[in-house]
Amino acid sequence: MSLYHFQTVKHLVHGAGALDQLGDKLALLDVPLRRVVLVTQNAMHGLGVTERVKAQLAARDIDVAVIDNVEIEPTLENIEQVFREQVAPRQPDALLAIGGGSVLDAAKLFAVMLTNEQSLRSMLGIDQVARAGLPTVLVPTTAGTGSEVTPNAIVTLPDEELKVGVVSRHLLPALVLLDPLLTLSLPKAITAATGMDAFTHSLESFISNKANPVSDTFALESMRLIAGSIVEAYQQPDSVRARSDMLLGSTYGGVALTAAGTAAVHALAYPLGGKFHVTHGVANAMLLPHVMAFNLDSCAPRLKRAALVCGLAREEDSDEAAAHKLIEQIAAWTATLEIPQDLAAFGVREEHLPEMAVAASKVTRLMVNNPKPLSLDDIQALYRRLLP
Amino acid sequence: MSLYHFQTVKHLVHGAGALDQLGDKLALLDVPLRRVVLVTQNAMHGLGVTERVKAQLAARDIDVAVIDNVEIEPTLENIEQVFREQVAPRQPDALLAIGGGSVLDAAKLFAVMLTNEQSLRSMLGIDQVARAGLPTVLVPTTAGTGSEVTPNAIVTLPDEELKVGVVSRHLLPALVLLDPLLTLSLPKAITAATGMDAFTHSLESFISNKANPVSDTFALESMRLIAGSIVEAYQQPDSVRARSDMLLGSTYGGVALTAAGTAAVHALAYPLGGKFHVTHGVANAMLLPHVMAFNLDSCAPRLKRAALVCGLAREEDSDEAAAHKLIEQIAAWTATLEIPQDLAAFGVREEHLPEMAVAASKVTRLMVNNPKPLSLDDIQALYRRLLP
Repeated sequence: MSLYHFQTVKHLVHGAGALDQLGDKLALLDVPLRRVVLVTQNAMHGLGVTERVKAQLAARDIDVAVIDNVEIEPTLENIEQVFREQVAPRQPDALLAIGGGSVLDAAKLFAVMLTNEQSLRSMLGIDQVARAGLPTVLVPTTAGTGSEVTPNAIVTLPDEELKVGVVSRHLLPALVLLDPLLTLSLPKAITAATGMDAFTHSLESFISNKANPVSDTFALESMRLIAGSIVEAYQQPDSVRARSDMLLGSTYGGVALTAAGTAAVHALAYPLGGKFHVTHGVANAMLLPHVMAFNLDSCAPRLKRAALVCGLAREEDSDEAAAHKLIEQIAAWTATLEIPQDLAAFGVREEHLPEMAVAASKVTRLMVNNPKPLSLDDIQALYRRLLP
Repeated sequence: MSLYHFQTVKHLVHGAGALDQLGDKLALLDVPLRRVVLVTQNAMHGLGVTERVKAQLAARDIDVAVIDNVEIEPTLENIEQVFREQVAPRQPDALLAIGGGSVLDAAKLFAVMLTNEQSLRSMLGIDQVARAGLPTVLVPTTAGTGSEVTPNAIVTLPDEELKVGVVSRHLLPALVLLDPLLTLSLPKAITAATGMDAFTHSLESFISNKANPVSDTFALESMRLIAGSIVEAYQQPDSVRARSDMLLGSTYGGVALTAAGTAAVHALAYPLGGKFHVTHGVANAMLLPHVMAFNLDSCAPRLKRAALVCGLAREEDSDEAAAHKLIEQIAAWTATLEIPQDLAAFGVREEHLPEMAVAASKVTRLMVNNPKPLSLDDIQALYRRLLP
């Protein structure tokens, strides 16, 4: 019986066409809106999304500046430069973001940079942001990072070959729109990697040492939704049903990880991102089946509950048998979704492993959540499973 | 595939001792606090709760005024008088409330009355409150009304023998503390009635015509939690496990009903409350088994899912068989928990039924959510089941 604090966003609109609700829902921000900044990515122009948003805002006499040059997994310098040159001069009343995790994270940072004197670097870490930011509206186009419901934003420090986070409740948005229609045209490889990333968020939250009853609710329902839709979303990209469930499942995964934290998969993914430029989703997706196989004997009852909710096992199965079924399904998804399983393709060689293991082991913030401790040898052995 | 808007509270602390987190969590309100008003009820003084709160606030140099004379199911005049005489003169920076639904509702109203010029009467209805209120911290002591997470507050209009609601997102609190230790000393009859009321919120939300995937998540988990703890909470009042699950289940019920609405049980309960002074929880608890038996043939697949999540049925059961098991369990709870089943004890007689049926049928806001339409004869027949 533990005591825990749970936080989430107040307003969520979900369903096909949710983006068209944007104009009507802006009243929820409770501030007069004359100027907004829309952070998005190039692909959204081609899909007509930017124009649809502009039209909704113009109809309400709201001026909008579009920013589409935030890098993927941006550096601290990129965020600072875009902020200085394009965001701050507009003096917006609110921020909108339509895109993947990097775009949403950038908007979350811009919103607090506008109301705080402090430098971005001084915001790195946990609860280092002094004041609430401008209100944000976040619209994810992948399913996904869960960024739309987390208090986290990740930036890269290239000099240190490191990704670091700003974690602050002030990063939580005022409103989230989940529109599956925006995800229909995702490239298959991104559907696969971000979908497995979302499943990783939920599964790691569920077996986390910090799991609590509320995070469990979201983690289990997230896994149920994703298990029932990830292959369909990959094989039939136009399936609105599958895309809708993936999007809600991903958001629930973000809610779960906000409360319970992620664990060894994410810790091991960090060195792959910082040094070898494996994107976050791909790194997590690659590692997931191997880390879960490693974890199996330490959390079989929880893995059974996950297997049950995903429809992969039966009540009468032993914990171990059910857990094995889940691990096998994860491995099968990895194959079906063509998740890369070769770190050599990213330039990783055997001689890098000791250093990578040390780097992963230093992510103690996440490692402490893992139900089974990992030695440096354990970590190297896990990376080695992804070498030829 | 429908589009829906989901709203909830941002911060929730749950677990034994959550009340002792109050002082530390006040920073979440994001306003400087010099003076607060604590709305509570007499019983909390005897339990030492008021003193514990005062001590936490005094340690932070926050002045607190205690208000303990809000009526149970208060009239509009009572709310206005307490506001005018005790709340407004204190010019508080925030409101705390520790109590049952009436206490929480009152604090929610005070918070918006402090920031809006308009009269309380002009706030009645949906979205009639112009501006956000002061921040509120809500601590329920029953499990419960779910008031801590709903945008609703109910007041009685005695002249019209009517209960009416203020429904506004501005009533949602800044922070909710769920402390099962505060519910250990609840009178058994209140544990029973409010517990069945909470189950009613979830079951009606789940079969509501407005149910959506997010409300379903909360409704199902709420029913699972309550089904697994309501009898234990009644028979072993000191069971922290049962009280904790009841409290979270009740809060989830409030989240579900905010999104999906309640239905015929609540509509039929209104005339019992307004004219015959049956309290809200008792009225809902009395009506629940009978209305569900009436509904059975219109929503058997959903009732089966509810039965499954409560551990009352098996996948291989037919929809109807599983639904019957759920209804039978609800009837069994009604008996075990000694829920009143005699409206005559409240002064209701056969000749009142036509007028009551008309009044219930006019609660169209809730009736439209019911999966099966009710004629005036249907409603009278349901009330008649509660007459000798």
